[in-house]
Amino acid sequence: MDFKVYEHKTQYYETDQMGIIHHSNYIRWFEEARSDMLEQLGIGYAYMEKLGIVSPVLSVSAEYKSMTRYGDTVRIIASVEQFDGVRLHLTYRIEDKETGELRATGESRHCFLYQGHPISLKRRFPRVQELLESCL
Amino acid sequence: MDFKVYEHKTQYYETDQMGIIHHSNYIRWFEEARSDMLEQLGIGYAYMEKLGIVSPVLSVSAEYKSMTRYGDTVRIIASVEQFDGVRLHLTYRIEDKETGELRATGESRHCFLYQGHPISLKRRFPRVQELLESCL
Amino acid sequence: MDFKVYEHKTQYYETDQMGIIHHSNYIRWFEEARSDMLEQLGIGYAYMEKLGIVSPVLSVSAEYKSMTRYGDTVRIIASVEQFDGVRLHLTYRIEDKETGELRATGESRHCFLYQGHPISLKRRFPRVQELLESCL
Amino acid sequence: MDFKVYEHKTQYYETDQMGIIHHSNYIRWFEEARSDMLEQLGIGYAYMEKLGIVSPVLSVSAEYKSMTRYGDTVRIIASVEQFDGVRLHLTYRIEDKETGELRATGESRHCFLYQGHPISLKRRFPRVQELLESCL
Repeated sequence: MDFKVYEHKTQYYETDQMGIIHHSNYIRWFEEARSDMLEQLGIGYAYMEKLGIVSPVLSVSAEYKSMTRYGDTVRIIASVEQFDGVRLHLTYRIEDKETGELRATGESRHCFLYQGHPISLKRRFPRVQELLESCL
Repeated sequence: MDFKVYEHKTQYYETDQMGIIHHSNYIRWFEEARSDMLEQLGIGYAYMEKLGIVSPVLSVSAEYKSMTRYGDTVRIIASVEQFDGVRLHLTYRIEDKETGELRATGESRHCFLYQGHPISLKRRFPRVQELLESCL
Repeated sequence: MDFKVYEHKTQYYETDQMGIIHHSNYIRWFEEARSDMLEQLGIGYAYMEKLGIVSPVLSVSAEYKSMTRYGDTVRIIASVEQFDGVRLHLTYRIEDKETGELRATGESRHCFLYQGHPISLKRRFPRVQELLESCL
Repeated sequence: MDFKVYEHKTQYYETDQMGIIHHSNYIRWFEEARSDMLEQLGIGYAYMEKLGIVSPVLSVSAEYKSMTRYGDTVRIIASVEQFDGVRLHLTYRIEDKETGELRATGESRHCFLYQGHPISLKRRFPRVQELLESCL
């Protein structure tokens, strides 16, 4: 599937007194891009939560390559790196929209809970499984 | 009742590129102080949510008097201004801990929902009512 | 001048455990819309800071009319209510993009600092003054 | 040196609609604990910025082990893992204050900039160097 790349315009409240975007926001942008990708797939968080599925974050990491400043727009490219029906592994790439310069890379890992318990999407929600697999 | 005044140490991630604490954080500090006051009263948010009561914010305002900088500790004094069993009106005063200088004043208004509907605490939860009235 | 209305898509990290968007985010959305309006006028924050002007928030308030939920897109309409060259008074209106339902109203007041001191834009930066006046 | 362990009380605005603390806050708590550790060493961010040193984050990661809920207090233990005068590598451990249960682990890497350029603390700021080395 061909995704529309997610864009985020940086906000003043995201800056810190170093005069750059505070690093913690990148973790939130990963979530924005992930959430947008799942929505484009037809299995957004809102939809998943209606099915009773929540998808906690198991781990997250970011490597900062260059600084992002207030007013910049960044493109956040999320990709499904691995998915085995139980765990989802995504990678991210943040680039300046205008120059294409790399701002950061990162990844996150997720599981799926149904009624509070870890589940295999393969068995319980084959449609969700298929859609996620189609991104590999 | 005599409350212990709530203190907040400002954090780097709360700063913005003006080199001061971003104004939106004061609204969060009001919540911190409100939440702490309710806990000291024995009716913290966690307790209220166990009773099935949620307390949405109806309005909030802040007047910024002087700048707060990274590393400062502020005292946030929350007071019950009015409470009629249905609506709660709080006021806030933020002072620098060291100098006592006024940083901001503010207020917030709240109602109480039980199973999604506005309720009068007086009728349904007289104990909560009493405790809140004791602050007037 | 005819402004393009600013839109914000709500994010998961903006929700709280009441299952709605946390009220402090509306204050940030006001900033997003204000910042966008100034940019459309050609006097965005980045431009102002290049001139050496910063524009601290003197006060802010919000009235919450109905709940915003994760996944909703809101329209945030910022308007210049008053401007006398020294102080800027804006009002805001947040509506659900799809239904038009009113989510919140609010306002903010700002002054202008140059080299740390309050200034009258009228004298020092007549072009900025004109542009802001054109919004009245 | 024997550090006082940093504690953070979770706040309502840190929760998300999964009913837990949003994962992005842990990254901010790492910063809180790091900042507190440096202050206990006598080389807090405020002091460093007075010297003209800023210390950007090169990378950050977190592994989430169990959920943190509103009202919990966590202990965040920051340790200097490696420091060679140019790069600082810290690790973190977040535990529930009451039960000691592990909530998350993590790490961050930092360099030091002076007038916008990477520097070796060893040469330019031997006192800062010594203090950081004393943590190894």
